[in-house]
Amino acid sequence: MTATTETRGPGRRGAGELPSYTLVNGARKMQIRIGIVGYGNLGRGVECAVKQNPDTTLVAAFTRRPPETVKILTEGVGVYSVDKIAEMKDEIDVLILCGGSATDLPKQTPELARLFNVVDSFDTHAKIPEHFAAVDAAAQESGKVALISCGWDPGMFSLARLYGGAILPNGVDYTFWGRGVSQGHSDAIRRVDGVLDAKQYTIPLEAALTAARSGSNPTLTTREKHLRECFVVAKEGADLERIEREIKTMPNYFADYDTIVHFISAEELKRDHSGIPHGGFVVRSGKTGWNGEHKHVVEYSLKLDSNPEFTSSVLVACARAAYRLNAEGVRGCKTLLDVPPAYLSPKSGAELRKELL
Amino acid sequence: MTATTETRGPGRRGAGELPSYTLVNGARKMQIRIGIVGYGNLGRGVECAVKQNPDTTLVAAFTRRPPETVKILTEGVGVYSVDKIAEMKDEIDVLILCGGSATDLPKQTPELARLFNVVDSFDTHAKIPEHFAAVDAAAQESGKVALISCGWDPGMFSLARLYGGAILPNGVDYTFWGRGVSQGHSDAIRRVDGVLDAKQYTIPLEAALTAARSGSNPTLTTREKHLRECFVVAKEGADLERIEREIKTMPNYFADYDTIVHFISAEELKRDHSGIPHGGFVVRSGKTGWNGEHKHVVEYSLKLDSNPEFTSSVLVACARAAYRLNAEGVRGCKTLLDVPPAYLSPKSGAELRKELL
Repeated sequence: MTATTETRGPGRRGAGELPSYTLVNGARKMQIRIGIVGYGNLGRGVECAVKQNPDTTLVAAFTRRPPETVKILTEGVGVYSVDKIAEMKDEIDVLILCGGSATDLPKQTPELARLFNVVDSFDTHAKIPEHFAAVDAAAQESGKVALISCGWDPGMFSLARLYGGAILPNGVDYTFWGRGVSQGHSDAIRRVDGVLDAKQYTIPLEAALTAARSGSNPTLTTREKHLRECFVVAKEGADLERIEREIKTMPNYFADYDTIVHFISAEELKRDHSGIPHGGFVVRSGKTGWNGEHKHVVEYSLKLDSNPEFTSSVLVACARAAYRLNAEGVRGCKTLLDVPPAYLSPKSGAELRKELL
Repeated sequence: MTATTETRGPGRRGAGELPSYTLVNGARKMQIRIGIVGYGNLGRGVECAVKQNPDTTLVAAFTRRPPETVKILTEGVGVYSVDKIAEMKDEIDVLILCGGSATDLPKQTPELARLFNVVDSFDTHAKIPEHFAAVDAAAQESGKVALISCGWDPGMFSLARLYGGAILPNGVDYTFWGRGVSQGHSDAIRRVDGVLDAKQYTIPLEAALTAARSGSNPTLTTREKHLRECFVVAKEGADLERIEREIKTMPNYFADYDTIVHFISAEELKRDHSGIPHGGFVVRSGKTGWNGEHKHVVEYSLKLDSNPEFTSSVLVACARAAYRLNAEGVRGCKTLLDVPPAYLSPKSGAELRKELL
C-alpha cells in the first residue's frame, strides 16, 4: 500500500481557474480548500494536519491580530484579517474554527456558518445543545454544513460511548481522562493569591481502571477515579501552606479529589512541564445472554503527546466529511455521531471494504 | 437515566392490525420486527440481544431443520421452515442472517435481500468485495437495505482501523486477536489423523502489544504477534509425536507461529474449554506536527466472554440502523463504515448530544 500522490494546479483557485486536484495512484482527487480561523496551538495543529492529508490544501489563515504580525509555517499561503473573511467566500471549501469554547465559538460558528461550511471543536459539554441549535439555524438557512464538537472529548470519546452503549445496552460507561494537562485546572491554580504559574495533571487511578475493566460494573466515586497533581511556582516569600490549602479545598476543581501539590521553580516548570500531553479511556462494561450470564468489556483509549495536534487531526478529517456531506446536498449542524465513518477517510468505499473491513 | 419502557400492541402485526410500539419515558417508539434465519449460537445470541433492546421484537425464527425440532427461548414466537419465509414478507422489518460465511451467506444474503432488509456477519475478509457486489445488485433492485459484515472483525475492528487511519494518516495499524478460540484452527486440528477433538486459542504476545503501543511504529512478524495454544484429544494409542508435528508444521494455520500442543482427555476438554471467549486489540500509532515530532497511540480493545453473543449484539444494533436507513429511502448494500453512528442507537439525536457527546 504505497500510494503515490502528486498535487497539480494552483492551491487557491478563483471562479475562472482550473480546479486543483491530486493524483493518487493515477486517479484525480479534488483538493479540499481549507481556511483556518485563529492561529494558536490548535490552528497551527490544523496547518500541520493539512500537510499530512494530500487531498486538502491550506488556502488562508485568518486572525484577529494584525495579519503582518502572524507568521505561519506554510510557504505561499496568506494570513488575513478575520474582517476580510467574507471576501474569500468562493475560494474556501471548509473553514476550520480554532478559537476557544468560552467566548469565540458561540459567536463565530453560527456567524461563519452563514457563509461557509465550518468545523469546530466546541467542548463545553453542558452547552452543546444550545450551540447546536444556534449553529443549525444558521446552516439550515445558508445551505452549508457545520460539524461541531469535533475532537476527542467531545468527539472520539463520544463515539466510543455511543457504539459501546448501542451494542451493550445492559451495561455501564466509564470515562477516565489523563494522564494529561488540564488547562482549566491550571488556570484555577494561577488565580490563587501568591501563585505565579502552575500546571495541573489529571491522573486516572489504576485501581479504578482495573475495576472498570473487570466487568463487575462497579460504582466509582469522583475521588476513586482520578488524582490531581499540581506543579506550582509561588511568589518569593508566599505562604506555601496557605496556597496548598486553598488549592486542595477549592470547590468544583479540587475539593472532591485527592490532590498533590509540588512547589517548583519557574525554570523547572519550563524545563519539565512545557508539553501538552493528554489522553484517557472509555470503558463499556456490559452483559449479554438470556440471563446476563456473559460479560464483555470494550475499551477505547488515547495516549497523546500533543492534545491540540490530535484535536487538529480530528478537525481536518471532519473537514473532509463536511465537504462531502455538503457536496451531496446535506445542510445544517451535525456532529461526529451523524457522520458516516467512511466520509472521514480519503479512501473510496471500495478501497475501504477491500483494505480495512 | 432510568428509562421506563413498556411494550404495547401485538408483537406480530398484519396489514390490518395496529402497529406495535413501546413507550419509552412516555414517548411512543415504533417496534422493529426482527426475524432470525438460522438458530445456532449466533441465532440464539440475536434472540437474547433482542430481549435487551426494548425497541425490537422477535416475530419469527426460520430454520432448515424440521421446525418442530427447534425450541427457542422466547415464548409465543413461532419457528418456521426457511422455505416459508417469503410468506412473512410483510410481517418482518429486518431479517438477521445467522448462517456461516463459507456456504450459507454467499447464497442467502443476496436471495433474501430481494424480499427483506437484511443484516449478516459475513466474515471471509478476502471475499467481502465479491459478496458486497452480489448483495448490492439484489438490494438495489428490491429497494431494500442489506448491512453486511456486521460483527467485530469485520465490524467494530474495521471501524477502529478506519477512524485511526483517517485521524492519523501518518501512522501504522496493528490488529491483534485473542485470547480466544479460533473455530477455523480448531477445525484444522480435528482433521489431523488420530485426533478426536480439539480447541485452539489464539494468544496475542505481550511484548508485541507493548511494542505496538510504544509509538515507535515497529515492524512485527506473524510469529512475534501471536502464539497458538492447542488442546487436543487423541484417539487411544495414536502417535502423539506425529500429531504434534503435523499440527505445528501445518501450512497457513500453524507453520508461521510458535505453537504449543497439550494432549488432554475428552472430559478435560469439556470441563475446561467449553466456552467461546474471544477479543483483541486494534492499535493505531501515528505522528503529528510539522516534522512528525509528536507521537499518538489510539487503541480499541475487546474482552468477550462469548464471541457469538457479542457479534449478535452488533447484529441487532445494525438491524436498527438498516431499518432506519431503509425508512429514509436508502437502498442497496452497506457496511458499518457507511452507517451514521447515531442510527445504531435507540436514542434520539437530541438525547445523544445531551447525554453522550
